[in-house]
Amino acid sequence: MHAPTFEDIKAAKRRIASYAVKTPVIESDYLNEIVGARVLIKAENLQRTGSFKFRGACNFVMQMTDEECERGIVAYSSGNHAQGVAAAAATRGVKATIIMPSDAPQLKLDNTKKLGGKIVTYDRATQNREAFAESYMEGRSEILIPPFEHPRIIAGQGTAALELFTTASERGVGLASFLVPASGGGLIAGCGMAAKSLSPGTAVYGVEPEKFDDTKRSLAAGKPVENEQTTGSICDALLTQRPGDLTFSINARQLSGIELVSDDEVLAAMKFAYERLKLVVEPGGAVALAALLAGRFNCNEQPTGIILSGGNCDPDVFRSALALPTLGV
Amino acid sequence: MHAPTFEDIKAAKRRIASYAVKTPVIESDYLNEIVGARVLIKAENLQRTGSFKFRGACNFVMQMTDEECERGIVAYSSGNHAQGVAAAAATRGVKATIIMPSDAPQLKLDNTKKLGGKIVTYDRATQNREAFAESYMEGRSEILIPPFEHPRIIAGQGTAALELFTTASERGVGLASFLVPASGGGLIAGCGMAAKSLSPGTAVYGVEPEKFDDTKRSLAAGKPVENEQTTGSICDALLTQRPGDLTFSINARQLSGIELVSDDEVLAAMKFAYERLKLVVEPGGAVALAALLAGRFNCNEQPTGIILSGGNCDPDVFRSALALPTLGV
Repeated sequence: MHAPTFEDIKAAKRRIASYAVKTPVIESDYLNEIVGARVLIKAENLQRTGSFKFRGACNFVMQMTDEECERGIVAYSSGNHAQGVAAAAATRGVKATIIMPSDAPQLKLDNTKKLGGKIVTYDRATQNREAFAESYMEGRSEILIPPFEHPRIIAGQGTAALELFTTASERGVGLASFLVPASGGGLIAGCGMAAKSLSPGTAVYGVEPEKFDDTKRSLAAGKPVENEQTTGSICDALLTQRPGDLTFSINARQLSGIELVSDDEVLAAMKFAYERLKLVVEPGGAVALAALLAGRFNCNEQPTGIILSGGNCDPDVFRSALALPTLGV
Repeated sequence: MHAPTFEDIKAAKRRIASYAVKTPVIESDYLNEIVGARVLIKAENLQRTGSFKFRGACNFVMQMTDEECERGIVAYSSGNHAQGVAAAAATRGVKATIIMPSDAPQLKLDNTKKLGGKIVTYDRATQNREAFAESYMEGRSEILIPPFEHPRIIAGQGTAALELFTTASERGVGLASFLVPASGGGLIAGCGMAAKSLSPGTAVYGVEPEKFDDTKRSLAAGKPVENEQTTGSICDALLTQRPGDLTFSINARQLSGIELVSDDEVLAAMKFAYERLKLVVEPGGAVALAALLAGRFNCNEQPTGIILSGGNCDPDVFRSALALPTLGV
């Protein structure tokens, strides 16, 4: 597979424009004051299906031939890709089967069903997702839509940064740094590419949950390495086993580094988003905000862009965030 | 006092443009499906200070003379107007004193202080707000910024609908109905005026909490009448004693009716906003959404606009909303 180009990202933007939300870029006086710089927040939790995943899935489905649409699609996902694929499939009347971990948040399971996806579950603790998907696909004719390891997916996710940097430029803000959640690496590969194309001087950083620092260790090792576990963080959207070969090859040449955040820092960021941004952000979607608020990343008082990547949060987890004290009062 | 004109609303928009957020207009597949029509949601919870109140306050403060700015300002408010006024005052370095009920949500008290406002409290159950403010003002030179009963405030609040109807028109949507929270009546007076000017065929409806139906009863009586109580609903932002003479005179000629919603319907709407819109909405801010979801208002499958007017919600109240079952799964 080849890496997508910036042209592919611009083409993706045109392709998905009628279906995907051009999500707002939000600023907060409180956040700017705490950080000491302007922070532009791309609110992908307000994307259709509640996360950026719809962008890549839609860009994929829109490029399928009629014959491929007849065959239907399969996707494996912890939840957000599932909903993105199910919604994208529905726009073309394509049958979608989604392979999900049995411990995915109930809301993500329910939503995927509601969007018309047929769900097949596996046990995340004992079964390897990719291997399970591979054996499921045997003898079937459906098209597999991977969660990150595909140029169409990467280009689709990159449209979030294309929009963010276009808005930043309209507002006269040059972003010195850009923080993006990292897991399989599709979002940050596409967004990093768009950022570097539109604003070559911007330093792009990934943010991962502590103990799920596969991208950080992969960058150090010069090749993709695996996480030691795939459960054990509230950031359910970021618990992929390892970066993709394609996404890693892109990220290795464009990332300035990776910041890590703890679950407690993530919960504090979710509380901040509730209180100051009036946004519902899920744990995995809040890691970039957490890195800023917890001082894990120092922007040196220079304008910074971040992506809030999703908002599909089980109420119990949100309740734990609500119980935390208010930041900065 | 004279009623503002649509020209005043357009002037307000220009005046506050550098300070107020042009809040996004959000759509939800889920909501459209439940309601059976496109619903355009003006997300004023994403406004600076977390509610539409900043618009009116900013429009007022921007028109003060330098001499008036020297004297400082006073405002009385249950919370959202307080924050709006404090933030608007800060943009011109004006000293602000805010008279708030002692039982206002802690977050609104804290935020007002944080924005630089000096707070004076009164007991909502035993003291009349207007009378308390009047006695407080005796012998002082500060300018009083009323929460709704002033043409500058009404014109400022109207900019929310000016933006919503402009966006609706850009999206090719003609809004048959428009639902706006009603309390003192400033928001709905300004928004109704903008709506009727830009889209004369749109029917404008107010939404009030049950038992705080002063606008509904005032419309029936042909003159402003009072609520029997000023406490006893979770919609703390909508518990004003009675409509203003000016706001009522405007609303009486442009409203098609008033819908009432219960506290439980409001909580269900807040849960829906959490789950499907990924937005934090406070009780008073959610009444228009509640009227749609609870079937209190029937839009007859015609496109409808609503305003989510604020998002400053005490965590305990939000927690009760989270505990409710998911709607429409």
